[in-house]
Amino acid sequence: MSNLQFLKPSGSLFVDRDVTRFSDIVKAWEGKEIQGVGLIGAPLSKSSISHSGAHLAPGTIRKALSAFTTYSVEENLDLNEWNIQDLGDIVMHVTDIIHSQERIFETLLEVYATNQNFLPIILGGDNSITYPSIKAFTKAKGRVGVIQFDAHHDVRNLEDGGATNGTPFRSLLETKTIEGKNLIQIGIRDFSNSKTYRTYVKEKGVSIYTMKDVRENSIKNIMTEAIESLNKSVDVVYVSLDMDVVDQSEAPGCPAIGPGGMSASSLIEAITLLGEQPKVKGLEIVEIDPTVDFRDMTSRLAAHVVLNFLKGKEKAKLR
Amino acid sequence: MSNLQFLKPSGSLFVDRDVTRFSDIVKAWEGKEIQGVGLIGAPLSKSSISHSGAHLAPGTIRKALSAFTTYSVEENLDLNEWNIQDLGDIVMHVTDIIHSQERIFETLLEVYATNQNFLPIILGGDNSITYPSIKAFTKAKGRVGVIQFDAHHDVRNLEDGGATNGTPFRSLLETKTIEGKNLIQIGIRDFSNSKTYRTYVKEKGVSIYTMKDVRENSIKNIMTEAIESLNKSVDVVYVSLDMDVVDQSEAPGCPAIGPGGMSASSLIEAITLLGEQPKVKGLEIVEIDPTVDFRDMTSRLAAHVVLNFLKGKEKAKLR
Amino acid sequence: MSNLQFLKPSGSLFVDRDVTRFSDIVKAWEGKEIQGVGLIGAPLSKSSISHSGAHLAPGTIRKALSAFTTYSVEENLDLNEWNIQDLGDIVMHVTDIIHSQERIFETLLEVYATNQNFLPIILGGDNSITYPSIKAFTKAKGRVGVIQFDAHHDVRNLEDGGATNGTPFRSLLETKTIEGKNLIQIGIRDFSNSKTYRTYVKEKGVSIYTMKDVRENSIKNIMTEAIESLNKSVDVVYVSLDMDVVDQSEAPGCPAIGPGGMSASSLIEAITLLGEQPKVKGLEIVEIDPTVDFRDMTSRLAAHVVLNFLKGKEKAKLR
Amino acid sequence: MSNLQFLKPSGSLFVDRDVTRFSDIVKAWEGKEIQGVGLIGAPLSKSSISHSGAHLAPGTIRKALSAFTTYSVEENLDLNEWNIQDLGDIVMHVTDIIHSQERIFETLLEVYATNQNFLPIILGGDNSITYPSIKAFTKAKGRVGVIQFDAHHDVRNLEDGGATNGTPFRSLLETKTIEGKNLIQIGIRDFSNSKTYRTYVKEKGVSIYTMKDVRENSIKNIMTEAIESLNKSVDVVYVSLDMDVVDQSEAPGCPAIGPGGMSASSLIEAITLLGEQPKVKGLEIVEIDPTVDFRDMTSRLAAHVVLNFLKGKEKAKLR
Amino acid sequence: MSNLQFLKPSGSLFVDRDVTRFSDIVKAWEGKEIQGVGLIGAPLSKSSISHSGAHLAPGTIRKALSAFTTYSVEENLDLNEWNIQDLGDIVMHVTDIIHSQERIFETLLEVYATNQNFLPIILGGDNSITYPSIKAFTKAKGRVGVIQFDAHHDVRNLEDGGATNGTPFRSLLETKTIEGKNLIQIGIRDFSNSKTYRTYVKEKGVSIYTMKDVRENSIKNIMTEAIESLNKSVDVVYVSLDMDVVDQSEAPGCPAIGPGGMSASSLIEAITLLGEQPKVKGLEIVEIDPTVDFRDMTSRLAAHVVLNFLKGKEKAKLR
Amino acid sequence: MSNLQFLKPSGSLFVDRDVTRFSDIVKAWEGKEIQGVGLIGAPLSKSSISHSGAHLAPGTIRKALSAFTTYSVEENLDLNEWNIQDLGDIVMHVTDIIHSQERIFETLLEVYATNQNFLPIILGGDNSITYPSIKAFTKAKGRVGVIQFDAHHDVRNLEDGGATNGTPFRSLLETKTIEGKNLIQIGIRDFSNSKTYRTYVKEKGVSIYTMKDVRENSIKNIMTEAIESLNKSVDVVYVSLDMDVVDQSEAPGCPAIGPGGMSASSLIEAITLLGEQPKVKGLEIVEIDPTVDFRDMTSRLAAHVVLNFLKGKEKAKLR
Ligand SMILES: [Ca+2]
Ligand SMILES: [Ca+2]
Ligand SMILES: [Ca+2]
Ligand SMILES: [Ca+2]
Ligand SMILES: [Ca+2]
Ligand SMILES: [Ca+2]
Ligand SMILES: [Ca+2]
Ligand SMILES: [Ca+2]
Ligand SMILES: [Ca+2]
Ligand SMILES: [Ca+2]
Ligand SMILES: [Ca+2]
Ligand SMILES: [Ca+2]
Repeated sequence: MSNLQFLKPSGSLFVDRDVTRFSDIVKAWEGKEIQGVGLIGAPLSKSSISHSGAHLAPGTIRKALSAFTTYSVEENLDLNEWNIQDLGDIVMHVTDIIHSQERIFETLLEVYATNQNFLPIILGGDNSITYPSIKAFTKAKGRVGVIQFDAHHDVRNLEDGGATNGTPFRSLLETKTIEGKNLIQIGIRDFSNSKTYRTYVKEKGVSIYTMKDVRENSIKNIMTEAIESLNKSVDVVYVSLDMDVVDQSEAPGCPAIGPGGMSASSLIEAITLLGEQPKVKGLEIVEIDPTVDFRDMTSRLAAHVVLNFLKGKEKAKLR
Repeated sequence: MSNLQFLKPSGSLFVDRDVTRFSDIVKAWEGKEIQGVGLIGAPLSKSSISHSGAHLAPGTIRKALSAFTTYSVEENLDLNEWNIQDLGDIVMHVTDIIHSQERIFETLLEVYATNQNFLPIILGGDNSITYPSIKAFTKAKGRVGVIQFDAHHDVRNLEDGGATNGTPFRSLLETKTIEGKNLIQIGIRDFSNSKTYRTYVKEKGVSIYTMKDVRENSIKNIMTEAIESLNKSVDVVYVSLDMDVVDQSEAPGCPAIGPGGMSASSLIEAITLLGEQPKVKGLEIVEIDPTVDFRDMTSRLAAHVVLNFLKGKEKAKLR
Repeated sequence: MSNLQFLKPSGSLFVDRDVTRFSDIVKAWEGKEIQGVGLIGAPLSKSSISHSGAHLAPGTIRKALSAFTTYSVEENLDLNEWNIQDLGDIVMHVTDIIHSQERIFETLLEVYATNQNFLPIILGGDNSITYPSIKAFTKAKGRVGVIQFDAHHDVRNLEDGGATNGTPFRSLLETKTIEGKNLIQIGIRDFSNSKTYRTYVKEKGVSIYTMKDVRENSIKNIMTEAIESLNKSVDVVYVSLDMDVVDQSEAPGCPAIGPGGMSASSLIEAITLLGEQPKVKGLEIVEIDPTVDFRDMTSRLAAHVVLNFLKGKEKAKLR
Repeated sequence: MSNLQFLKPSGSLFVDRDVTRFSDIVKAWEGKEIQGVGLIGAPLSKSSISHSGAHLAPGTIRKALSAFTTYSVEENLDLNEWNIQDLGDIVMHVTDIIHSQERIFETLLEVYATNQNFLPIILGGDNSITYPSIKAFTKAKGRVGVIQFDAHHDVRNLEDGGATNGTPFRSLLETKTIEGKNLIQIGIRDFSNSKTYRTYVKEKGVSIYTMKDVRENSIKNIMTEAIESLNKSVDVVYVSLDMDVVDQSEAPGCPAIGPGGMSASSLIEAITLLGEQPKVKGLEIVEIDPTVDFRDMTSRLAAHVVLNFLKGKEKAKLR
Repeated sequence: MSNLQFLKPSGSLFVDRDVTRFSDIVKAWEGKEIQGVGLIGAPLSKSSISHSGAHLAPGTIRKALSAFTTYSVEENLDLNEWNIQDLGDIVMHVTDIIHSQERIFETLLEVYATNQNFLPIILGGDNSITYPSIKAFTKAKGRVGVIQFDAHHDVRNLEDGGATNGTPFRSLLETKTIEGKNLIQIGIRDFSNSKTYRTYVKEKGVSIYTMKDVRENSIKNIMTEAIESLNKSVDVVYVSLDMDVVDQSEAPGCPAIGPGGMSASSLIEAITLLGEQPKVKGLEIVEIDPTVDFRDMTSRLAAHVVLNFLKGKEKAKLR
Repeated sequence: MSNLQFLKPSGSLFVDRDVTRFSDIVKAWEGKEIQGVGLIGAPLSKSSISHSGAHLAPGTIRKALSAFTTYSVEENLDLNEWNIQDLGDIVMHVTDIIHSQERIFETLLEVYATNQNFLPIILGGDNSITYPSIKAFTKAKGRVGVIQFDAHHDVRNLEDGGATNGTPFRSLLETKTIEGKNLIQIGIRDFSNSKTYRTYVKEKGVSIYTMKDVRENSIKNIMTEAIESLNKSVDVVYVSLDMDVVDQSEAPGCPAIGPGGMSASSLIEAITLLGEQPKVKGLEIVEIDPTVDFRDMTSRLAAHVVLNFLKGKEKAKLR
C-alpha cells in the first residue's frame, strides 16, 4: 500500500528528521506513576473579575511549546532525553465555579498523593486556580514557599465577589496554607494596587519587590535574595507566574495589561535561575487570554518560560 | 482514583448525554476496507494564483462539522447510525507542487482500488486538486459526470502558470478524462470570466448555468435538468463545489470573493437533491481560505453542505 | 462665560435640532412607578456552555439604539412622544452564577410587583436569563404564553452542567412555570438539535416551526397561527428572542452561528406583528456576544427589533 | 538581455493572455478630449459627521475594478473594446473643507466644459461631494434629474455643522440647483431619518420610495416609474449612489450601517436598467469607508455597480 | 425595596471596597472655580495630514485612567485625597477646522482667566491643538517654556496645507507666542524630519535632543539640563507630549509610528521628574489614534503619564 | 486649464516643499548601467515550510520607505543627493518553485554582469531566496563573506522538503558557494534550532554568536570582530537579514516569531556599522509576512534598516 505513505492525521506538521521538537518529548499520561515533570491544565476563567478567555491558554501554550525545539544553543544542552507526561486538563463545571476550584484541589491532591516524584507545571486558567493548587501542593509537600511574579498583590477581600482571580493569596494567607514570610511578590506595579492591600501583605510579613526594585536592582540579585530566604524556611518552593508581571508590549495577551512592567528577558533569566534550584518543585502560569493576544505572543513567551525552567533543571542535573 | 474523573485531554468539549454530534459518528480510519462515506483532506494551496491559505480548510471544516449534531429536525431524520471514516490528509510536498498533485492522484487511486464502496468527501485545498482527484475517480469508476458549482469556468490555459487553481477543468477536458457534455457548470458569474474561455467550454459541449439562470430559474429545476442529463450518459456523478459560487456576504472566506453570487440556501437545496441521487458518489469542497474568513463562517457552511449531502443520502435510503 | 458653550461631556454626539433620536426618549429610571416600556439589562454570560461575552450586549444594544431616530418613514409614524425608562442593569455576582440568576428573578419580581403597567424589554446576557425572567413574569402576570425565536430547543438536561444557556425551557417546562402548549418555538434548525430533545418538546405539547416551515410558509402566517393559538389560552405573551435564530450572515455576533437561519427581514416583520398584539407584554433579546461581532451589526439588528416592536405598539395605539 | 524578462514593476499581477481585465480598458488621462466614460475620484471625507475614511474609497474601488474582467457571461457581452479614461483624484486641502468642496466643483466644471462627451463616474468620498458635483453637472448639462439611492434623505439643516455628508440635497434644493420634482429618493429607511426632513422633502415635491416600497414593489417597476417621470422633465439624469442604501450584511463598509436595507442584487438590477437609459449621463458612488469594511467587500460591490452600469450602456448600444 | 440593590447603571464596573480608583478622585466640573488639576479634551483630528482618529483619544485615555488605582506602590504614596475636575471636551465644528482651533483657544483662555489655580491636563486630539492651547496658556501665564516630546520638529511651512498637526511649533515661533530658546525638543528621530526644518529650529534657538542624545545620555540628565535652562528664563513650563516620541513597539497606536523611538520607561521617568517641578503647570498628550491601536495600549500608556505626572506633583508636595 | 491643478493620480500623498522623502531619490530603472545602490524584489514565499505571505514584503517595505525622509538628524546628514534605482520585482512562476529560484539566480547574475557597480538591496521573499541570490553574487564578485542575522542556522537537510526557507545556508555550504569560515551567524536563539544543525555548522567552521553572546557582549564588539575576520579572507561581504532575529515584540510580522530575540536598536546599530564598511556590497531582508504583521511595523523596521545601511555608506563617503 505504498502510496498511502502520504495519508496522515489532519494538521500534521512538517517533520525534519534532524530536529527534536518539544512535542517529541511529551506523552499523554496513561496513569502510571509519574517520574519528573508533567503538564496539567486548569482551564478556569469564569472566576475572573473581568471577562477572560484564560481557560483557553492551556491549549495555546501547548501549541506554542510543540513548535519549539528541545535544544538550548546558548548552553549547548538538549532536553531530548526528557520524558514529560501530559496529564491533560481538569474539566471545569459549566455553572458552579466554586466546585470547579474544588475539582482543581482534589484532582491535584490525588495526583500528588499517588505520584510523589511528580513535578507539576500547571497551565491556567486565571489566578484563582492558585489557591486550590497551592493548597493541594502544601498538603502533599509540607512547608511551601511561594515566589509570585505578578503586577498585583492579589489579596482582595473575599466579600466583594468571592474567590476570584484577585483573591488567591488572601485565601492562602487567611487559611494559613502558606505563611506570609514564605511568600515573595515580585514585580508589583504602580497604580495597579491599593494602599490597603499593600499594608495587609506587609503586616503578614510578605516580601515585596516592586517594579522600582526590579528596575534599580538586578533580577539576579533579587532571585538570589529570594532563594536564600526561602531555602532557610521551607521544604519546597512553588513558582506562581501571573504573566501580567511582564510589560504590555511583551505580554499583550493578559487581561490586565499596562505599561511599566518587567521585561520578558528578566523574567526568563529569573525562571532559569529558579529552575536550577533543587527546592523549586512546582510552576504555574496564569492570566493569559488568547482571545485578546496578538499571534499567541504571550503563549509563546509562556512556552519559553517552561523551556527555560526545564533548562535550569537540566543545568542543575549536569553539575 | 475517583477524583481523576475530571482529567481529560486538553480542549475536550462539553458533553451532553442526550446529543449526538457529528464527531460521534466519525472515526479515524484504521486501514480496513471502507464501506460508505469517508472524509479525506487534500491540503494543497501553493498552486493558487493568488495567495491562499486553503490548505488549512480541511482542519476548519472538520472542526465546524464536529460542532454540529447528527439530527435533521426539518426531516426528523438522524444520521446517528452512520459510520464515517476519516482518512486524514494527504501530506503535501513543501516545494514540489506538481508532485503534490501526483500524491493526490496516486493516493486516491490506491484508496479507490482497495475500497470499492468508498464514497469520498474530499476537503480541499484549492481547485487545482480537482484534476488529480477526478482523474483518480474516473480511473476507478468509469464514465464520470461532473456537476461543478463555481463562479468561474476554470479552464485557463496551462502555459501562463502551469496547473493552478484556475485550470482543473481545462486539464480534465484536454486529457479527455471527462467529456464536455458530461460537465455541468452552475453559478458562472459576470465579470469574473473571459469570453475566450466561455467560447472554449461551449465548444467542448459543456452545459453552463450562469447566475442569471440561477436567479431566473429555480435551483430545483436546474438540478432536475442536470441530473436527468447526466443519468443518461454516465456511470457516476462527482460534485465539485468551489465555495466561491456563493455570494461574498454568505461565503466571505473564499480567495476570490465578489457580489452577485448564489445564496447559501440555494446551494444547500441543490446539494441535498444531489445527495439523494444514487449515481452521485463523490463530493469535493474547495477554495475556502480560513485565514481570511470571518469566524469560520465559510467552513461552517461547508459543514452544512456535507451534512445535507448525507441527509440526501439518508432520505434516499429511507425511501 | 460665553465661550464655555463649547464644553460638553466627553463623547457627546453631533446634535441636529431637527432630528429626534432614540436617546431623546429614554431616561434613567428614578424609582417612580413605570408606565409603559422600560429597558433592563441582565448581563449574565458566565452561565454559557461556550465562552461568551453576551454580558456586554446590554451596553452595545443601548449604544446602537441611541444612534437611531424615533421616526418610521415606512409608516410615517414617530415615537418621539414616548417616555421610556432605562432601569439599568442587574448587577451579577462574580463567582456565584446561580445567585446571579436569583438576582434576576428577584429584581424582576420586585419591579413587576411595584410597577404593574411596566412593559419590560430585557437585554441579555445569554439564554439562561430566560428561566428567572419568565418565572418572575409568570408570578406577576398569570398564565403566560411564550413565543421563542431560536435555532435551538434549549431543553438540555440539567445534570450535565446545571442551569446553562442550553436549559431555560427545560426548567420552565419541568417547573410548570409555563405549559408546553403555551410555548411556540420558531426557527428550529437542522443539525443544531438532538432527536431526544425534539421528542421531549413534542411530548410536552410545544409547537415547533422549523426553518423549513419558515422557508416554505410565510412568517406572517406563522405569526397569525401562533398568536391565535396563544390568544385563546393565556393572559399575556412574552417574546423570547435568541438572536441566533437569524442566519450567520445577518447576525454574525452570536456565539453559536451557522447557515440556514432566518432572514433579518422576516424577524423584523414577525416582531412588528407581535408588537401590535395587546397581549404581548414582554420582550427579551439574548445571545449576542459583541466581542465576536462585526461592527456591532448584531446589536444594531437588536436595536431595530426593539424599535419595530415599539412601532407595532404605536400602530396598535393609533388604530 | 533575455533573463531580464522576469523583472517587472513591484506588485504586478498574474497575466493570463486569454483574459481581458477591467484594468486593460482603462488608461490614465493625458488631457485630450474625453469621449465617453471616465473615472474621477473625489476623496473628501473630513466633511463627514462621524469619523470616516471614505476618502480612501477611490483607491479601493479602482483596485477592486482591476481584478474583475470585462466580460458579462450573463449577457454574452464584452466591454473589451471600451476606452475608459482615469482622470485621477481631485486633491483635497488638508484643513479647508469648504475649499475642498470648491475644488470639486471647479475641477468638474472645467472638465465638463472642455469635454462635452465625457460621461463621469465619480468615486467619493462622502456624500458631501454630491452638492459640488451636481452643481457642476447642472451648469454643464442643463436641467438635471437625480436618482438618489440612499437610506437617508440627506437634507439636514446647514446651521448645525455646515455642508456635511448629511446636507447635499438640502443645498441642491435650497439653491434650486435641482428641482424637488426632479429628485427621486430610493431606499429611505426606518429609524434613520426624521419626520421634519421627510416633511421637508415632501414639500419640495421630491419622490420617495421607502424600503417598504422596495420590498413590496419590484425594483424594476420603481425604476420604470422613475425613469418615465424624469424622461419627461429633464435633459439628463445623474445617479447618486450612497452605498448605505444596501443592507449592512452586503455593504458592511459604510459609516452608517444598519439592517433593513436593499439587497445588492436589487441595486445591481436597478443600476443596469439605469445604464441602459440614454439620458443617464453621470454616476457617483459615495460613503464607502474601506478602513471599517470586511475584505473590501463594499468596494467590490461598488466595482460591480460600475461594471453593470457599463453593461447597461453596452446593451443599449447593441440594440 | 431590598432587591433593587442590584440595579445599577449599565456598564458599572466591579467595586472592591478596599481599592481607590482614579475614577473615585475625578468629578465632572460644575463650573465652580477650579483649584488644581483638571482634565479637558480637545478632540480635533480633522486637521491631521494623514487620516487620524485622534479625536477619540480623550475618551480612551479617560477609560484607561478609570481602570487604574490611585496608589503608587513604588513610592508608597496615594493620590486618593486629590480632587480632580473633569471639564469635559471642547466640542469641535464639523466642517470648519480653523474655527475648531479657535474654539480651543477661546475656551481655554476663558477657563484660565476665571480659574487661575487651574493646572490643565489637555487630552488631544492631534498636535494641531498645541498652537491654540499654548497661545491661551501664554496669554494667561506670562513667559512660557515648552518641553516637547516628539519624534518630529513640527515646524512645517503653513502654505502647503494650513495649520495642521505638522505646524504647531512653526505657528508658535512665527507669532512669537514662545521664544525659540524656551522650546526644548526631545526625541527627534532619524529619517522623520527634513534638514530644512532642523535648520529652521536651530536658527530660532530651539534646543534639540535627538534620539541619539536620549540613547547615549540619560533621560534624567537631559531633564535636569532642560529644567535648569527653563527655570532661568520663563515663568511657567508647559509639557507637550506627542506620543509618537515613544517607539512603535510600546506606543503602537500613533498615526506616525516607526522604530528607533524612546522607551516608555524613559518617558515615564521624564514625566515624573517634570511633575515634581513647581514651574511645570500644564501637560498635553496628543497624537493617539485609538482606531489603529492594539487593546488601547497607547491610551493606557497615556494614563500612566498622567498618573506619574500627578505622582511627581505629590512627591513635591510631600517634601 | 488652471483648475486642473488639482487632478493628481489616485493615492497621491501630501507634499511639503521643504521635505525630501525617500521616494524622491528612487527612480524606476530604465535599463541603463546602474551606479550604486538599487532595490530589487524577490517575492517568493511558496518555498516556505509554514504558510507565508512574505512575497508581499517588497511592496510593504517600499511603501514604508516612501513615507520616511532622507535626513538623519542624529548625524546631520542628508541622503537627498542619492540616486537609487528600483529594478522592480523578479516575477515568480505560479507552480514551479525551483524554477522561481532559478529566475532569481539568473536575473541577478545578468544584472550583476552588466552593472558592475551595482550595490543590491534585495527585498524578499522568504529565506530560500538567499541561496540563488548569494550564488549569483559569488559568481559576480569573487570570494564572498556573509554576515547572517537570524534566529536560526538555516542548514536543514534537503531531503525532507527540498530547497525551503530552512535550507539556504546548507545549500551554500554544500555547494561550496561560500566557505564555512566566511559565514558568521548572529542572533541564534534557544529552543529554535537542533543540536544536529549546530554541530553541522560548527564542523563547517561557521562562526556563531548566540543571543546569549548578543546580550552579554555589545553588538558593536561583535560587529568589529566579524568585520575584522572577514576583511582578511574575502573580497566582498553580503549581509543577509532574516528579520526574525529581532524579538517578537519589535518584529511581530515574521512567520516564526518568539521571545528572546535581538532588540531593533541593536540591529540598527549593527547595520549602520556594516554600511560603513567598504567591503559590504550587498544586503537582503527576508522573512517578513505583511499579512500577519501589525500596522506594517516589521516593514517599517526593514525600511529603517535600509536607511541606516545607506547612512553608514554616506558616513563612510564623508570621511
Ligand atoms: Ca496580575
Ligand atoms: Ca494575579
Ligand atoms: Ca471559483
Ligand atoms: Ca474554481
Ligand atoms: Ca440558540
Ligand atoms: Ca437559545
Ligand atoms: Ca446614507
Ligand atoms: Ca447619504
Ligand atoms: Ca510626532
Ligand atoms: Ca508632533
Ligand atoms: Ca529565521
Ligand atoms: Ca532564516
